[in-house]
Amino acid sequence: MMTTAAQEAYQPADGTIPALPHHDGSRLYVSNATPRLGETIRVRVRIPASNPYTGVKLHSLVDDEMHLEDARPILRTPDEIWYEAPLPVHNPVTRYRFALLRDGGFDWLNALGVFDREVSDVYDFRVTTFAPSPAWNREGATYQIFPDRFARSRQSAERSAPDWAHPTAWSATPLAYGVETGRQWYGGDLKGIEEHLEYIHDLGFTTVYLTPCFPARSVHRYDASTFDHIDPLLGGDEALRSLARACHARGMRIMGDLTLNHTGSSHEWFQRALHDPNSEERDYYLWNRYPDDYVAWMGIKALPKLNWTSAKLVDRMIRGASSSAGKWLGGESGLDGWRIDVANQTGRWAAMDENHMVATTIRHTVDELTDGNGTLIAEYMPDATRDLDGDGWQGVMNYAAFSHPLWMWVASPDSGVKRFGFDVTFPRRDGTAMVGTMRELLAQIPWKVAESQWNLIDSHDSARILTLTRNPHVAHAALGMMMTYPGVPMAFAGDERDAVGVTGEESRTPMDWDAPEDAHCATMSRYRDLLTLRSTSSALTHGGLRWVNVQADAVAYLREDANDRLLVVAARRGGQHVRVTRDLLGGGDPQLVCGEGTMEPGDHGALFTLPDAGYGIWRLGDLDVPRW
Amino acid sequence: MMTTAAQEAYQPADGTIPALPHHDGSRLYVSNATPRLGETIRVRVRIPASNPYTGVKLHSLVDDEMHLEDARPILRTPDEIWYEAPLPVHNPVTRYRFALLRDGGFDWLNALGVFDREVSDVYDFRVTTFAPSPAWNREGATYQIFPDRFARSRQSAERSAPDWAHPTAWSATPLAYGVETGRQWYGGDLKGIEEHLEYIHDLGFTTVYLTPCFPARSVHRYDASTFDHIDPLLGGDEALRSLARACHARGMRIMGDLTLNHTGSSHEWFQRALHDPNSEERDYYLWNRYPDDYVAWMGIKALPKLNWTSAKLVDRMIRGASSSAGKWLGGESGLDGWRIDVANQTGRWAAMDENHMVATTIRHTVDELTDGNGTLIAEYMPDATRDLDGDGWQGVMNYAAFSHPLWMWVASPDSGVKRFGFDVTFPRRDGTAMVGTMRELLAQIPWKVAESQWNLIDSHDSARILTLTRNPHVAHAALGMMMTYPGVPMAFAGDERDAVGVTGEESRTPMDWDAPEDAHCATMSRYRDLLTLRSTSSALTHGGLRWVNVQADAVAYLREDANDRLLVVAARRGGQHVRVTRDLLGGGDPQLVCGEGTMEPGDHGALFTLPDAGYGIWRLGDLDVPRW
Repeated sequence: MMTTAAQEAYQPADGTIPALPHHDGSRLYVSNATPRLGETIRVRVRIPASNPYTGVKLHSLVDDEMHLEDARPILRTPDEIWYEAPLPVHNPVTRYRFALLRDGGFDWLNALGVFDREVSDVYDFRVTTFAPSPAWNREGATYQIFPDRFARSRQSAERSAPDWAHPTAWSATPLAYGVETGRQWYGGDLKGIEEHLEYIHDLGFTTVYLTPCFPARSVHRYDASTFDHIDPLLGGDEALRSLARACHARGMRIMGDLTLNHTGSSHEWFQRALHDPNSEERDYYLWNRYPDDYVAWMGIKALPKLNWTSAKLVDRMIRGASSSAGKWLGGESGLDGWRIDVANQTGRWAAMDENHMVATTIRHTVDELTDGNGTLIAEYMPDATRDLDGDGWQGVMNYAAFSHPLWMWVASPDSGVKRFGFDVTFPRRDGTAMVGTMRELLAQIPWKVAESQWNLIDSHDSARILTLTRNPHVAHAALGMMMTYPGVPMAFAGDERDAVGVTGEESRTPMDWDAPEDAHCATMSRYRDLLTLRSTSSALTHGGLRWVNVQADAVAYLREDANDRLLVVAARRGGQHVRVTRDLLGGGDPQLVCGEGTMEPGDHGALFTLPDAGYGIWRLGDLDVPRW
Repeated sequence: MMTTAAQEAYQPADGTIPALPHHDGSRLYVSNATPRLGETIRVRVRIPASNPYTGVKLHSLVDDEMHLEDARPILRTPDEIWYEAPLPVHNPVTRYRFALLRDGGFDWLNALGVFDREVSDVYDFRVTTFAPSPAWNREGATYQIFPDRFARSRQSAERSAPDWAHPTAWSATPLAYGVETGRQWYGGDLKGIEEHLEYIHDLGFTTVYLTPCFPARSVHRYDASTFDHIDPLLGGDEALRSLARACHARGMRIMGDLTLNHTGSSHEWFQRALHDPNSEERDYYLWNRYPDDYVAWMGIKALPKLNWTSAKLVDRMIRGASSSAGKWLGGESGLDGWRIDVANQTGRWAAMDENHMVATTIRHTVDELTDGNGTLIAEYMPDATRDLDGDGWQGVMNYAAFSHPLWMWVASPDSGVKRFGFDVTFPRRDGTAMVGTMRELLAQIPWKVAESQWNLIDSHDSARILTLTRNPHVAHAALGMMMTYPGVPMAFAGDERDAVGVTGEESRTPMDWDAPEDAHCATMSRYRDLLTLRSTSSALTHGGLRWVNVQADAVAYLREDANDRLLVVAARRGGQHVRVTRDLLGGGDPQLVCGEGTMEPGDHGALFTLPDAGYGIWRLGDLDVPRW
């Protein structure tokens, strides 16, 4: 009742969404997504010819005050009118929306849609002066590796288990629950990864992201004992340098994983802090009562929380080339960026909030040591939008705005998989619910941040997609969306080999390198095909997003830029008819380029049907829009 | 389509909203709205018995990480179940929402309503550790006075016009447009206000808010030339001291108006800055090229913009007892608070954003000099929600979240009144649009901030409500909502005497003290009745808000606390039937306590009907909820 966008009223029962006024932050609509402060850019909006609008004004905030510009029509086709307006970029983050003039008044178009009422600024489009993540991230695809479980090199067999570790057979399924999970030592190492780099490259992934490699007292290594060295169990410093060189030699990139929220209690800093009241390190941590009582992650005493009001900690850990973060970055044998663990909590404690300072400081270090060509991705399970202007984190592992709504759409009612933190299995929700969440969260961040985010269908912290869906076809639907939704697809090693696991712990399953050659061939082919399509489709890497059909069991969207247009249909059940109106399809015959499905032309568009759950991707005719 | 709250689907065509799960930040639902950091408070949610929910969990963010608590049922009535849960207040601003458990999953309840999908945090409820504005503001009512136009004392006639002023006859209608508007000098003064204080008090207003009183080169005085003195044209320093004493003697309060965004170019600071390159004051302003080119409000060179990166400006203007802001605050002969002009732009310029620092610094000064009993209200025309955590501004003049949506509901299609900044008259929108906007914006601020805000139906910057509506009955509808919506009603002097004006300038009309005694008696009675009701109704000052019927031409809502329940019906057209369901009305017969209307009981509730546009307010039977 209350949040009525005009478009809500438009949608017929079969889920078809008619052509609506549209703008997003993609390059089809914005002349320069990263202007200098003070620059005036141009923005475009397309209005269907069938709509009642007679003109357009551009509303923006200048020093938080309303500013209006007239838009002028620049293109008229039988189906639509394109308007263009100048947008002065007076502030680092400029919020804007469109007033669509009609007889007797106007409607608003913001990133959530068309509203026939006054709106808050929360869904305003945003353009910023902050550089996005580099092209290699935005146009690439990320392959996540949990080093202990990926592959063992010959050297691995020569290493003996440390005191905390339980040597475990490669073929054993990891435990799903309990404190023992972190002690199950399978012996994968960095050399093992390097030996399989061609495998990853052949699938089509361009970035390897390693979960932590620092010495610790667990295999997950989020309880680092030092940041000065790579764990000898993984091969030590030189193994990482060698792996980085091997990646770069193939034109691939490599990213590490750093926790800024806490260290392990065995960390050298914490040990010094604990035993020397006069040490500099004492101030790195948060003490309720020194030395007995300190703040720790989720109350777990093995993970003491860092105090980011300490300027010396900032220098030592994240500022500049000699810091913990800086030491491993840059050059042929260095990392190309960091993924930051529990970034949402980092620097936050009670009345203290240093999160933005931490994010912008490490961002500066990443930029400096990679000549502006590094990537900084933050882990956020909850809604990250408030921290995503893009001056710090370039994007997040996109759990809240992609994975969670998608998981609830594809979850099998009897998967047994629990929602993080809830003692209930994933509720199964309809496509309208999934899309509602995706739209609400996407509408609150700059588009280039969305292009930088890692969209994932599982990770080392979640159930495997096959376990959640209990149906390979439904898993394909999830995969198809991950590969085509705005942002960077991130797969967890093993997904392409049909890995299973009911929790993140169990999902850290060793790769089954000894499986028969053709065991996972169908799934691997899908990865190859989709990544090939992505690497050759500017619509997927730089295109805008328009939802064109949303039903309980099937959804469809367009990805479009000036040179390339794709229609993506995903369904969690086969046989669903997905109608797309003629004026949204444009000219030419849609051509199936990936996945499965049939197309049947009709009077008011075309009906797309998938034989089973899964995805179908069609290439559509080009747009003919004036160049910038 | 995309933003579907479950409740959107519930609403029948006649606008009736059934009982829905409800919580807001009012004291019916929150045990302590201003806890200490570290305190655990309790929050309650009510679930209609007809709903499918089997349990409730409380979701909050702790250091931006998800935290869950179980809620337990504390009260079951035939109509509903009340649940209560502990809420740990670990951060200064704590966001929370409820998971409503049902078979197969859960829905979310946030401040916007019930959602059958994952939601962002933007509409989470918020509790903060920041004190709200004092009771005298939250429980009071504000009367805005433009000093030149309210009343002339005998001394006024003895004053001669300054060089910039055009003496104007009291009976002349002010100009509506142009630079001459600020020069029309009618000669009202502070003594004149003091002489009419009983009039204001008798209407039921408790706070006098004066637009600026500092010397300037215009009658609006937003171009102050000093903050050290009160304009002799208004009677000088002693006249303000005397007026303050007179207010306090009646138990009333008095607030001033201060511009922190800019000064006049004739201001002594700016003159020194301009003429002495080595002056401290030079750094108070923003220079593109000294001394010729400086930043000014909306480019108007008479209003040079202040530079809040200057620590000396902070000390001189807003920090402590000797600052410009501090000098006039506190004590029997001082002000009880400030209204801050164009607060939205204050401290903001290109990459600079000192707004929060300015807000929290002056807030500290207000708190300090009034022993925590002062009020700080900010003027924001645009959406203010991002700046309303409540640690700085306690609230705003509520244009965006109240006036604008209301104006669009009550505007006459041929009013000729332009929307601020748009070259179009106010578009007329339906009640659903008005309520959609009010709900969206209210859902983004702490409840106690909403209780502190000044809701207005016109001001010295807008058309008068009678001119906008062109219909006194429709104006009553607006008045009825202003007096009963969460927040503090703020009237512009003259509204109670049927003043008119098509722009803010024209609305600054002199009070018609010489009108026949009974000329405005009907309107004045409404003010008296409504303010009497407000002063005796804890529901209006401390109650929650539930919308119960929303139609194009009529709306209805409940204001409720544990001791008092009111139903407000407002209509822009007479004869509309407004149905309220039985379980929302509760027991007992509704009694009309203000306004006009009839009530007819029916099978599924009652039908309320207003004879004409306007309002009707009914008192309902009490709740029986356990005390905190």
